[in-house]
Amino acid sequence: MHRTKVRVVEDALDANNTIAAANRSDFDRAGVTVVNLMSAPGAGKTTLLERSLEGLVNTDPPTLRVGVLEGDVAGSFDADRISVLHIPVVQLNTDNGFGGECHLDANMVRSALPAVPLDEIDILLVENVGNLVCPAEFRIGEDAKMMVCSVTEGEDKPLKYPLMFRSCELVVINKIDLLQYLDFDIDRLEANIMQVNPNATVLRVSAKTGEGVEAFREWMTSVSARAGATA
Amino acid sequence: MHRTKVRVVEDALDANNTIAAANRSDFDRAGVTVVNLMSAPGAGKTTLLERSLEGLVNTDPPTLRVGVLEGDVAGSFDADRISVLHIPVVQLNTDNGFGGECHLDANMVRSALPAVPLDEIDILLVENVGNLVCPAEFRIGEDAKMMVCSVTEGEDKPLKYPLMFRSCELVVINKIDLLQYLDFDIDRLEANIMQVNPNATVLRVSAKTGEGVEAFREWMTSVSARAGATA
Repeated sequence: MHRTKVRVVEDALDANNTIAAANRSDFDRAGVTVVNLMSAPGAGKTTLLERSLEGLVNTDPPTLRVGVLEGDVAGSFDADRISVLHIPVVQLNTDNGFGGECHLDANMVRSALPAVPLDEIDILLVENVGNLVCPAEFRIGEDAKMMVCSVTEGEDKPLKYPLMFRSCELVVINKIDLLQYLDFDIDRLEANIMQVNPNATVLRVSAKTGEGVEAFREWMTSVSARAGATA
Repeated sequence: MHRTKVRVVEDALDANNTIAAANRSDFDRAGVTVVNLMSAPGAGKTTLLERSLEGLVNTDPPTLRVGVLEGDVAGSFDADRISVLHIPVVQLNTDNGFGGECHLDANMVRSALPAVPLDEIDILLVENVGNLVCPAEFRIGEDAKMMVCSVTEGEDKPLKYPLMFRSCELVVINKIDLLQYLDFDIDRLEANIMQVNPNATVLRVSAKTGEGVEAFREWMTSVSARAGATA
């Protein structure tokens, strides 16, 4: 029984990887860098995008031509927020299943690609469903995985959700403006991140006040340049 | 392809319901009320338990005899915190699969039941994996589903994760001590909860300061009495 279950999971991941590779080919052909952006619900992914993209896409010419793919179980709240930046944004809902899929997979992303103008952008930011488990298990054809965690979530999260933290090359610690009101040890959080992923880049950010956001813009620019160099 | 997928999901839920019914029989035989406690990661489930159970189990005789089942992908951080209350607590890890299951199902709970002294408790609180999607889809044999959401998560969460909010008879809005530092409209959150679940009971709580915690204790006592009346 247990063996059968594991076999089904392996088959599903194999199929996912095949489609992820097809996505990857399309991204390479268009010269687009893709970032898989993950977090728990409410950690501030969308606010981070709002705040950071403003300074990238509103220069003349734009520093980076950015597109956004928004993944949610239901609704288009995040896409509506991003659309005011006048950049290509596509909403992808996962609620076609029984109660909604808790993550994006390669096939869901593939189904949205016809709506994304790959030839007009340098980087595609894919905002995954808010969840610290399954999104880390499904490749979508991305160049880089990153996550946002909030200082309101507790220092133990890297140890409780190790695959998520291990799979990300960048961890943005958000809402540092609230640190003064919390019993929260940010150094302990960073030590826990390092314990599960010693190679992670960690940025301390307040998407609300803008502190640290420029460092995140520089990370996006460097990931885009890196992908271009190897394409 | 799509039809096949839906069929697999339906079969999985059928199997889950069968095991949930077996759990339910065991709970009924022992006269134990079971609460399925859900939230996003870091919303404060464990802190709410720490704060509220103290006043229930440390009276003489105890107001309620409480047991806790802790569900996490990895680690026993939450069980360690609860164990200082000197009540039965069992840790259940879901990381036997590929990257960890993102929810508890009836079979996982069933596997933990031999370690739970059902005859010595009145109510079993099952702390699910932190996730706003899949935990709401899998019955475990519970009497009641409840959730904790935090004022740091954003007012839009009921509309983005409707099944979770719709499936819970109690929604605890936690961390209200932080309201004064946030741009957060708690009335809008409550209106959004009512939009997806007009029958929900909503409590405003600070597990940190203790504000509103007594109302949560009263809810646990009433759920326990209600289950006893129908058993």
